[in-house]
Amino acid sequence: MEDSEVKELMLALRKFAKDRDWEQFHSPKNLSMALSVEASELLEHFQWMNDQASYALGDAKHQLVSYEVADIFIYLLRICDQLNIDLVDITRQKMSINDQRYPVDKVKGSSKKYSEY
Amino acid sequence: MEDSEVKELMLALRKFAKDRDWEQFHSPKNLSMALSVEASELLEHFQWMNDQASYALGDAKHQLVSYEVADIFIYLLRICDQLNIDLVDITRQKMSINDQRYPVDKVKGSSKKYSEY
Amino acid sequence: MEDSEVKELMLALRKFAKDRDWEQFHSPKNLSMALSVEASELLEHFQWMNDQASYALGDAKHQLVSYEVADIFIYLLRICDQLNIDLVDITRQKMSINDQRYPVDKVKGSSKKYSEY
Amino acid sequence: MEDSEVKELMLALRKFAKDRDWEQFHSPKNLSMALSVEASELLEHFQWMNDQASYALGDAKHQLVSYEVADIFIYLLRICDQLNIDLVDITRQKMSINDQRYPVDKVKGSSKKYSEY
Repeated sequence: MEDSEVKELMLALRKFAKDRDWEQFHSPKNLSMALSVEASELLEHFQWMNDQASYALGDAKHQLVSYEVADIFIYLLRICDQLNIDLVDITRQKMSINDQRYPVDKVKGSSKKYSEY
Repeated sequence: MEDSEVKELMLALRKFAKDRDWEQFHSPKNLSMALSVEASELLEHFQWMNDQASYALGDAKHQLVSYEVADIFIYLLRICDQLNIDLVDITRQKMSINDQRYPVDKVKGSSKKYSEY
Repeated sequence: MEDSEVKELMLALRKFAKDRDWEQFHSPKNLSMALSVEASELLEHFQWMNDQASYALGDAKHQLVSYEVADIFIYLLRICDQLNIDLVDITRQKMSINDQRYPVDKVKGSSKKYSEY
Repeated sequence: MEDSEVKELMLALRKFAKDRDWEQFHSPKNLSMALSVEASELLEHFQWMNDQASYALGDAKHQLVSYEVADIFIYLLRICDQLNIDLVDITRQKMSINDQRYPVDKVKGSSKKYSEY
């Protein structure tokens, strides 16, 4: 893989952690906890909102939500770095699996899990 | 932004959802729940493991963990699409904020939150 | 506190863990991960459901949801045991704090967080 | 079931929500989100801590952790109320299932999931 924007971000985050001597805290285990915490901070913005409202966030809320999204991505990239995972490549692989698990003519309009068919 | 690999993935995921008539389920609210569920599936792999073990996953476990990482990224990209968030751009902005919140000489080797300093 | 049903459950869970030599895994840190994983398993049942549907679960779904609720309670009691927390007592204390944070005449019908008033 | 301390708490929480006209927000779906958010707030306290440290919290941290535990219990009881789940009874049932899934002589000292045996 040439140096893509994803890889650039990953390397910048590695340097950020290294400069602060934070790599000692960044075990995959701890990072998975931090990622889950950030995912819940995103969730919190939506917990009392109805579906329609969640599409139409005001500017201030949209900004806060966007930063939570960034925090999730930051920890996701740190995990990829620590576990040597190529994020773009594995995502393409998983999408190809999903394509086979959820054939259009079988699942159209249904929200069931593949194991429920 | 030119068509980057991140944008390509986002567009492919949009098509995947549209083909299956799943956009009706993909409100930002519901997607934030799905993302949080995937983050916990990652967490589950590490819950009884110690720190050291979480660095040295066997091949089979590494594969499973990688697919969970992909699932998280998939829902993150769907949220970005539904809320019109430029993931790479907002992540750069958030990293710049983090740079100011956590100056190297102040936080080196400490895991405290910026609000605790 | 006399031996209440909550304490009885807590002691039975302690014995269950001890009999299996699982106390070594049950650090508060690991238990907080396990609890979070169970909370997400509950969440997963509701992720693509609308609000109305979440009140009217069919019998099979209601049973599954009930067991997730039990799993959450089980890990919550294990945490209380490991950290010597009196669950009923601390909950009464927290409810009294909430009473002061959210005076009826100020918050009626609003879902804002106390820090947003 | 006679009026136990668990039921008393559940009824007090119902009144708290009703007095504030918050029952409109408390669908099982939304409550499962709120519970998951609280579980992550507990998780956050432990994310950069090692196992040993998580047993030996200082007084201030112990207090904060205890309140998170209470918040989790509060939402768990609200869910039980909205879905008509008898928490103590279902927990006893689930413990009995766990007893059969994890026979002592088979699982002693192992942290594997029952489906992995």
